[in-house]
Amino acid sequence: MSQPVAGRALTTTSFRPYDGRPVGSVADTPADVVRAMVEQAVDAAPSVAGVAPARRSDWLRAVADGVEAHAEELIALADEETGLGVARLTSEVARCADQLRFYGEVAAEGSYLGVTVDEATATSPRLVRVNQPLGPVAVFGASNFPFAFSVLGNDTASALAAGCPVVVKAHPAHVTLSVRLARIAERALHEAGAPEGTFALVTGREAGVDLVRAEGVAAVAFTGSQAGGLALWRLANERERVIPVYAEMGTVNPVVVTRAAAASRMEDVARGFVGSFTLGAGQFCTKPGLLLVPAGHDAARVVGDALAQAAPRPVMLTEEIAASVERGLGDLVAAGAVVVRDVPGADGGWGARAAVLSAPITALRTGSRLLEECFGAVVLVVEYADERELRAALGVLQGSLAGTVVTGDDTDPDASWLVEALTRTVGRVTVNDWPTGVAYTWAQHHGGPWPATSNAVATSVGAAALDRFVRPVTYQSAPDAWVPLAARADNPWGLPRRVDGRREDRRGER
Amino acid sequence: MSQPVAGRALTTTSFRPYDGRPVGSVADTPADVVRAMVEQAVDAAPSVAGVAPARRSDWLRAVADGVEAHAEELIALADEETGLGVARLTSEVARCADQLRFYGEVAAEGSYLGVTVDEATATSPRLVRVNQPLGPVAVFGASNFPFAFSVLGNDTASALAAGCPVVVKAHPAHVTLSVRLARIAERALHEAGAPEGTFALVTGREAGVDLVRAEGVAAVAFTGSQAGGLALWRLANERERVIPVYAEMGTVNPVVVTRAAAASRMEDVARGFVGSFTLGAGQFCTKPGLLLVPAGHDAARVVGDALAQAAPRPVMLTEEIAASVERGLGDLVAAGAVVVRDVPGADGGWGARAAVLSAPITALRTGSRLLEECFGAVVLVVEYADERELRAALGVLQGSLAGTVVTGDDTDPDASWLVEALTRTVGRVTVNDWPTGVAYTWAQHHGGPWPATSNAVATSVGAAALDRFVRPVTYQSAPDAWVPLAARADNPWGLPRRVDGRREDRRGER
Repeated sequence: MSQPVAGRALTTTSFRPYDGRPVGSVADTPADVVRAMVEQAVDAAPSVAGVAPARRSDWLRAVADGVEAHAEELIALADEETGLGVARLTSEVARCADQLRFYGEVAAEGSYLGVTVDEATATSPRLVRVNQPLGPVAVFGASNFPFAFSVLGNDTASALAAGCPVVVKAHPAHVTLSVRLARIAERALHEAGAPEGTFALVTGREAGVDLVRAEGVAAVAFTGSQAGGLALWRLANERERVIPVYAEMGTVNPVVVTRAAAASRMEDVARGFVGSFTLGAGQFCTKPGLLLVPAGHDAARVVGDALAQAAPRPVMLTEEIAASVERGLGDLVAAGAVVVRDVPGADGGWGARAAVLSAPITALRTGSRLLEECFGAVVLVVEYADERELRAALGVLQGSLAGTVVTGDDTDPDASWLVEALTRTVGRVTVNDWPTGVAYTWAQHHGGPWPATSNAVATSVGAAALDRFVRPVTYQSAPDAWVPLAARADNPWGLPRRVDGRREDRRGER
Repeated sequence: MSQPVAGRALTTTSFRPYDGRPVGSVADTPADVVRAMVEQAVDAAPSVAGVAPARRSDWLRAVADGVEAHAEELIALADEETGLGVARLTSEVARCADQLRFYGEVAAEGSYLGVTVDEATATSPRLVRVNQPLGPVAVFGASNFPFAFSVLGNDTASALAAGCPVVVKAHPAHVTLSVRLARIAERALHEAGAPEGTFALVTGREAGVDLVRAEGVAAVAFTGSQAGGLALWRLANERERVIPVYAEMGTVNPVVVTRAAAASRMEDVARGFVGSFTLGAGQFCTKPGLLLVPAGHDAARVVGDALAQAAPRPVMLTEEIAASVERGLGDLVAAGAVVVRDVPGADGGWGARAAVLSAPITALRTGSRLLEECFGAVVLVVEYADERELRAALGVLQGSLAGTVVTGDDTDPDASWLVEALTRTVGRVTVNDWPTGVAYTWAQHHGGPWPATSNAVATSVGAAALDRFVRPVTYQSAPDAWVPLAARADNPWGLPRRVDGRREDRRGER
């Protein structure tokens, strides 16, 4: 159990990225309050888990409605604290509300419960398997998506949908927005009939540590930097009862341009690449950070020209992030890259350069800083002489969330093997499509091999996001009345099931 | 990368449990040979992953046939090295062969690939999600099931079925059997057309460490002690590229007898309990180790009498395990238990006592040795005065693989809440049925909350065992010809899929 820490900060203050002025301050949550919130979540857990998933879908719809009803106010507040701009934030609020509804629908569909029944045979007892919610989930909001990956983002929505109470640790960069979102959610959940303790918010760095250490917390979901994610992962691994940490961390997200693509449309590719890596001032975990192009197209210069023409004036989420862009640029240069072109950031506040760097392919070696993310609108362009060099470079890449292949037409001889090669090192392969757009649908996967995510099977986006927050339990020889409702013989919730190895739909037809 | 270790043991020797005489010695695998084997597995991985799952099902059937063809020889050799007896080993060989075929059938059915397609919409690109094999898996054979959980046991069978090459670390207690099984598997796989590198065996403790550290190894599967499993988990967490460790570890597996059951059939229950905990000399990871009974039935004595009547003469797998039984008994007594009844082990060799202990319920406290497994035919009987005491005791239990409720008839008022309470702390709840039988079917789950398994979602037994060895990859906007065969639009392998959120069976009907 955590103890109150001497010298613990008392408040968290957010700032206006445009000019650096303070926006608001929120008192950090004391250790005893964190403890009480977790206890309330533990108490609520059986009720949250026990209702039909369609009921929780209603709760999530109520939260989505609440967010939409306050959209204007929320967008204005978010812009004050993030500087992401009203246009982007307007679409992100809509996305947040839609996501909440989507995860509710996935829960109501019921496949995530994995109901599986093997009837007794001469040699084998009757077995019924059904997934159970893990219990309270600690969600760490991300800085870069104040709606879609924060207090009411994918993690919170999918954990609630799966039947787990949620305690969110607010991101300090948009702490007053976080508190506002939490109040909207608490009210909507209360009015929709969810039990007290279904949702709570804590603020302050120490409160986050308290949360991961709290005995009652059953899982942690995090989106953010590698340093932050791995710190939480280590903390959870030191617990008496180790719990899963689903950390989704920023990665380099390589883009490979084939010979055919470079020969036919290098300037188009450069414009698309600039559009993708400058989105949100390059503050996307799926930002394409490394462009591998065939030699002979002067690609770094072409990309640099496209950047100069686009002329973004990046303003970063926090002062620390703005400083980290300069630091990252220095680190990349120290690791063998040169700056080909840069454009200045916004004046005042948390402005930071956007920059195109290049490096010789021989500098891409295991352990090199060049293979790691540089958060912000900073990219590295590397030329390959031939397939052998390209294959070698792909072989040393770290695991990434996404990877992109830019090809010629359907006869491009390099497309097929490149898609396969990228499959080994990423969780999502995009073809002639930039990775920064992440749809929330059934087929989405937003995890990736280590160190992109702490668990390569897990995703924070898409229907499978619910799977992170349940575990299977099998009931052997149990009379029907004593197994959970979801797994009863008469299938009262109309769930899809597998019976004696065969898939049945919700009407029980095979 | 591991280096040859000075002073590394040169051979592993196995012994005859009945009299302690040596059976055979096998040279430990040197570090450079381990490295070469892993490299061969890495090279084989794309071919093993690339064939249709039905082809791998053929390979597994060939291995099963090979095992059955050599059953007599294998059983005799296993009995020499394990002392588990010809009757038990005969049924275990049959189970091993059946399991190999079962996992092949699960692979061929194809649900484990999780093929999911979202067609493009006005706002969302076409996404295709399909699971990919992780790559080479290191399997650590268990001592207590030389066929079902060892060289060709559940882990090896499910990893191969899922499309991963396997390198097994032989258990030293049955090292000559392990080598023999490996030769049979290698020959069968070769003749069935599996690529070289699909399967290999290493021997020696250091070779196991080399394996977990090897860059090319993508996952580890282990069944055995908590100390052993956690050591491997820590080792894997220290790698540059952290990999999943699926460690399934011995647990206490509580049994709760309701008031109605104790009142009506305490002696029956005692006989069943003795039968279950003395099976295989108590060397089951699912051995019921703790009996919680209502006060007033003199339960410890009744169980003790049943043990005396059964009069097993336990002989343990190894000298170390035999010694650990005595040590465990001492630890339990030091933690507040008393020996109510014991019976002597087999004369000579690795004999060890079977024993019934009792302790006051107040001694069941978090951190107490009484809550941990004592490998062997040693159990603890604890009386509860009322529901409040029982609930408190259940609340302090560690996570277990299995838990059992022994009830009266269908009107037993304690059954339902006890099933639910045990659900929170175990992976499988058995009702009026002992946990030591573990069916390998679609609905089985053989994992449990920490520390029963390092990942509560994972199971080493049942169809879901394959899920441990794959990870999803999503293809965005990729032309059909460039996605893996499993996920092509014409569904060439006839796999069950989900398309636009709706489940389709293998004929594409919804």
